[in-house]
Amino acid sequence: MSDAFNSECPAREVLEHITSRWGMLILAALGEGPRRFSELHATIGGISEKMLSQTLRTLVRDGLVTRTVEPATPPRVSYELTPLGRGLTTSLEQFLSWIRKHTIDVVTAQRRHDKQHG
Amino acid sequence: MSDAFNSECPAREVLEHITSRWGMLILAALGEGPRRFSELHATIGGISEKMLSQTLRTLVRDGLVTRTVEPATPPRVSYELTPLGRGLTTSLEQFLSWIRKHTIDVVTAQRRHDKQHG
Repeated sequence: MSDAFNSECPAREVLEHITSRWGMLILAALGEGPRRFSELHATIGGISEKMLSQTLRTLVRDGLVTRTVEPATPPRVSYELTPLGRGLTTSLEQFLSWIRKHTIDVVTAQRRHDKQHG
Repeated sequence: MSDAFNSECPAREVLEHITSRWGMLILAALGEGPRRFSELHATIGGISEKMLSQTLRTLVRDGLVTRTVEPATPPRVSYELTPLGRGLTTSLEQFLSWIRKHTIDVVTAQRRHDKQHG
C-alpha cells in the first residue's frame, strides 16, 4: 500500500508529522481559516505553548503551513494552510468526521471489553 | 469542528489511539485483509513485537480489530478489522494515499526551508 510501511521512506516521516499528537488537530483547526498563535492555543484543548510552537515549526518546514508576521506592536503572528496543506485537510476532515460520529461506538466497545476482561 | 479539540472528550482518546505512532499503519495493513501477528510484524517496518502487541490490544479494546486464536500447534493468532474498523479504514486510505502522492512535495519543501534557514 503506502510507502509509509517502510521505515526508511520519507513518507513515514511525513505520516508521523501529520499524525503527531498535535499535528492533526492543528491542521484541522487551520482548515477553518488562518489563525493567530493565541487562537490556536485557545482552540486546541490541552496543548502547551511550547508544543504548539514546536509542532507549528515542523508543519511550516513541511510546507503545509505558512507563518506570517504582521508589523504591529506587539507583532501579530498568524498561521495559514498552504495549498499543499489545504489538499491534506480535505481528507483529514473526513477522517475527523468519522471519529466524531463513531466515538460513542468505540467507548461502548471499550466498556464491553473491560466488563469481559476486568 | 470535532470534539477531539476538547481534551476532556473521549473523541480525543479515540483520535490518539488511531493516530498513535503505529495505530494508523496497523489499521491500514489490516485494510488489505486479515493478518497473522507475524505478517503484521513483517509488513510494518520498524515496529517492535512489544509495540505491535500493545497497539493491537488497544485497537481490540476499541472495537476496531478482532483477535482470533485458531487451535493449532503452536496456536495461530490472527487479526481482522471489525465492521467499525472497516468504516474507519476507508477514510484512512484516502489520507494515506494523499501522503503517498505528496511525500515528494513535503521533502522538497523541507529542503527549501533548510536552505533558507540553515
